[in-house]
Amino acid sequence: MEAIETVRYKAIIAYDGTHFSGFQIQPNGRTVQGELERVLKKINKGTFVRIHPAGRTDAGVHARGMVIHFDYLSSIPTEGLFKAMNILTSADISINRLEIVENDFHARYHAISKTYTYRVHNEAIRDPFIRNFTLHHPYSLNREKAEQALRVIVGKHDFTSFCSTKTDKEDKVRTVYEASVDVDESTNIWTFTFHGDGFLYNMIRIIMGTVLEIADGRREVSEMKEILNAKDRNAAGPTISPHGLRLEKVHYA
Amino acid sequence: MEAIETVRYKAIIAYDGTHFSGFQIQPNGRTVQGELERVLKKINKGTFVRIHPAGRTDAGVHARGMVIHFDYLSSIPTEGLFKAMNILTSADISINRLEIVENDFHARYHAISKTYTYRVHNEAIRDPFIRNFTLHHPYSLNREKAEQALRVIVGKHDFTSFCSTKTDKEDKVRTVYEASVDVDESTNIWTFTFHGDGFLYNMIRIIMGTVLEIADGRREVSEMKEILNAKDRNAAGPTISPHGLRLEKVHYA
Repeated sequence: MEAIETVRYKAIIAYDGTHFSGFQIQPNGRTVQGELERVLKKINKGTFVRIHPAGRTDAGVHARGMVIHFDYLSSIPTEGLFKAMNILTSADISINRLEIVENDFHARYHAISKTYTYRVHNEAIRDPFIRNFTLHHPYSLNREKAEQALRVIVGKHDFTSFCSTKTDKEDKVRTVYEASVDVDESTNIWTFTFHGDGFLYNMIRIIMGTVLEIADGRREVSEMKEILNAKDRNAAGPTISPHGLRLEKVHYA
Repeated sequence: MEAIETVRYKAIIAYDGTHFSGFQIQPNGRTVQGELERVLKKINKGTFVRIHPAGRTDAGVHARGMVIHFDYLSSIPTEGLFKAMNILTSADISINRLEIVENDFHARYHAISKTYTYRVHNEAIRDPFIRNFTLHHPYSLNREKAEQALRVIVGKHDFTSFCSTKTDKEDKVRTVYEASVDVDESTNIWTFTFHGDGFLYNMIRIIMGTVLEIADGRREVSEMKEILNAKDRNAAGPTISPHGLRLEKVHYA
């Protein structure tokens, strides 16, 4: 019997997380991983192909630039595999790029940083067309306060206060390179951008829950520094809804 | 027993039509009318309130500016009714405006024209985030050809060729004031706009099915005039998917 020759593929995928129970495969519930592995198995005539993501996203969280890697038969042309994957995948996932990479490329271990966005719709009346991709926040937000709060978390910090207690990670020190907000005056959509070397479990959702409390006046700006220093999850605001969150890009060297 | 005093309300509503079996109430299937009447009945402590729309939209069709009218107790403040409707309505509908109008205002009879848009995503790979609001068309479109085809239908014409044979309307003459296209180069979303005094059953979807065949080269531009003149549904292109269509505005005098 001959050895089956494979190559390593890197793919960039987008998905609307609304109808997924998160990325990672699980016994019950529809997942992005489950959907992609189902498709690859079909293309591979019934033989299972394991995919490896740059990270997991929770139920309801979206991705524009999730990266995965997997090994697949070198005899199949990349262009054909790319087309087949897009045709067979359900409409809430798209494969935007597929390329052969070095055999030792690893989507998770080689990732050096990630960029996420969180969208908030700051208007009295909700908008049905963006409901799955923005958090509707009807209370008026102060941009300067939001920016002051965001500035506190930029840099290398222990983010224990902004990490779910359900985490299994010991080391809570992460570096945030960017934490900013852009306001579209015509739609009143506030797009918060976070770029960092890694994010703890629920970290952006807890940061956002806290920043919104500060921006709408329920908390003082000065509290942000106190919360960070407290290294206590109870000091921060709530973990807000996942549906405003989107993984935009995974950065590699 | 005292007479119950009512006032006539005009409301502007938006809805994501994805999960509705159209606007009009029906025995089976979730409808926009059914949802709004359920909400008003609840606010009205169990007494039914009939709503009257400016027109119907088919299953999957969206609206940004549908207009309805209904009669409701004059004793209830408008602001409270407005808030209650938005709170109780499911997230795929919003009430964007509510006002008391003359008692003889009629959402349908008094409408003088309507504006619809149809969105096409002209890229090889589909985008999961806009899949419910744009038609994905992977074949390259020629803008000049699209505009030439659209120009043919502007004016007062017999639109029999662009009307479903299932219609019960005898008079197929309608006036189209505007038929244009705007291309967003950054997203490759083509937004087609149609403004007219009225649109026949499936009219925009059949026009769009034909315009796309012309714009992607499957038909000649010269055929548009021939199709219009034929006054025969079989001469035109297919009735394309409803999910790219949105009622933007109902115009009143």
